[in-house]
Amino acid sequence: MARIALDAMGGDHAPRVPIAGALLALAELPPQHSLFLVGRRDRLATELEAQCAGGKQPPGALERITIIDAPDVIDMSDKPSAAIRAKPNSSMVVGLKLHASGTADAFVSAGNTGAQMAASIFLLKLHEGLTRPAIAAFFPTARKPLVVLDAGANVDCSAEELVQFARLGSVYAQDILGRPNAAIGLLSIGEEPEKGNAAVKEAHRLLMQADLNFIGNVEGRDILAGENARAPVDVVVCDGFVGNVLLKFYESVPGMIVGMLKGAGSPPELIARTFEGFDYSDYGGAPLLGVKGVSIISHGSSSPRAIQNALGVALRAVEARMDEHIGRRLDRTAVRNA
Amino acid sequence: MARIALDAMGGDHAPRVPIAGALLALAELPPQHSLFLVGRRDRLATELEAQCAGGKQPPGALERITIIDAPDVIDMSDKPSAAIRAKPNSSMVVGLKLHASGTADAFVSAGNTGAQMAASIFLLKLHEGLTRPAIAAFFPTARKPLVVLDAGANVDCSAEELVQFARLGSVYAQDILGRPNAAIGLLSIGEEPEKGNAAVKEAHRLLMQADLNFIGNVEGRDILAGENARAPVDVVVCDGFVGNVLLKFYESVPGMIVGMLKGAGSPPELIARTFEGFDYSDYGGAPLLGVKGVSIISHGSSSPRAIQNALGVALRAVEARMDEHIGRRLDRTAVRNA
Repeated sequence: MARIALDAMGGDHAPRVPIAGALLALAELPPQHSLFLVGRRDRLATELEAQCAGGKQPPGALERITIIDAPDVIDMSDKPSAAIRAKPNSSMVVGLKLHASGTADAFVSAGNTGAQMAASIFLLKLHEGLTRPAIAAFFPTARKPLVVLDAGANVDCSAEELVQFARLGSVYAQDILGRPNAAIGLLSIGEEPEKGNAAVKEAHRLLMQADLNFIGNVEGRDILAGENARAPVDVVVCDGFVGNVLLKFYESVPGMIVGMLKGAGSPPELIARTFEGFDYSDYGGAPLLGVKGVSIISHGSSSPRAIQNALGVALRAVEARMDEHIGRRLDRTAVRNA
Repeated sequence: MARIALDAMGGDHAPRVPIAGALLALAELPPQHSLFLVGRRDRLATELEAQCAGGKQPPGALERITIIDAPDVIDMSDKPSAAIRAKPNSSMVVGLKLHASGTADAFVSAGNTGAQMAASIFLLKLHEGLTRPAIAAFFPTARKPLVVLDAGANVDCSAEELVQFARLGSVYAQDILGRPNAAIGLLSIGEEPEKGNAAVKEAHRLLMQADLNFIGNVEGRDILAGENARAPVDVVVCDGFVGNVLLKFYESVPGMIVGMLKGAGSPPELIARTFEGFDYSDYGGAPLLGVKGVSIISHGSSSPRAIQNALGVALRAVEARMDEHIGRRLDRTAVRNA
């Protein structure tokens, strides 16, 4: 039984889209799971009523939703750390407090990413042995999807932090993607250990000694192939600057290709068939790994389906006890290094 | 009249492919232009004879080719700086010396990129005011193609170097793409000036004060759009680690999409039509900007058509007097800063 707190005021079209996503999720999730919708009580109640009016909602959906009042909203333009201090009654802070106190088992938001990171670190705390959390993003590939981290939580990363990301990604790939002993690749500009910037070269040395299934460097061209010259890859480790540029670049590819296909006279059915399974809303949410708990970051532009899938990722993380496994994996390392 | 030196031993299928590319180029270039083919004289003569045997070569092609003997070859696996010292009679070093001495007006190679960079810096020298050269790569976009630099010459870049790249890219966009007053974007992870890593944030500040058409940060998603929220972009500035990862990632996209299209049952003609104008061999060569001269870097896996196009880029750079313009642009800056 999982209880997930959803920031109903987060995202470009809140509260309409988060609520629609919540209802989609409840229609598919087993009945023991429930949701907290966090936001302005009156707006949420009105919206929920309107969306349920059609009578198409699953039986019992409303009983599995609890509205938690949070009168403030952190906007996309708010400065993260100032906002979480200035707006303690925001849906972001109230929702994360629900999780920190154990009332909710996870938190999902499509709101201000910087504020979600800052509030998650502040309220949930980092696991021992970590200096920074990392955002883990799914990348569809020619093989199975892989995980790229960090996708934007950190801009300047040390070699040690890159190794921390490798540990976090390894647990994530096991618990969420079902890939035990996940193959870890280090993003660089050549396959040889001596290629890369200073942090990457040092991280390569450290990863060779770590208790991880490290398969060496991966280059830009290896990501979509889903493998380097040596082995298939499950987790690609990089700093958050490169990871964020790459993620946003990749997200823009389908739009360009669809435009090219239309220009070449492709029938719409063929385009739809081609990009089946390639839709980013299939992946929905990127977890902020390293905090004690489950904090899932969604795009501001998320669709109801993306919110539904983000709630699904949260549920898988709770059921797999990912947070506990991350703690154990980091503890084991701490003991070994002591 | 331009005389271009081509490293006939550079690339995965040398000397066959460079020679085929040279013959393609001569068939299209006006008759006043000529080529030096640099490499093992006997192998080049045999290959040239074989390729001309069919009688399909343009009249007078052979008279416009001069073979320059260079018995050594720098392999892809050679360490760059060691190789240029150990192999002074390699096609790479001999070809660049032809250019440095003024016998040739430009140099093109599909060989070891690191060695080409090291030898270009050593033999041609950098323009005053520069600490590093940069590789400028074409990116096809939904609008006009744009230039990304640095695409891999430098891994750790200072803010000042990013500004140097902006100056180099501005001249390149003007001379090769015909875009006066080129719009410069700085690659970052958000549009606000305070987003990015330390070097990028400082570069943003410096670019605001520079005599350049700086349009602010561009994000990963803006590249294929060919514009940020403010304006179309001609030149994207980034460090060589990010640029190289992005370039190799982008180069791998068409292969994956073609696979998806085939999987969806797309007819081959539609695929060909879709990717018309998107072929990387249309762009062919990436200049190493900042050295005194014209040194064009091609992929090791270049096709004859890619070599032909790299020779075309070299010719345009010579005819536009790009090198002189870069010198002048940097001098002007030096005077202003003095």
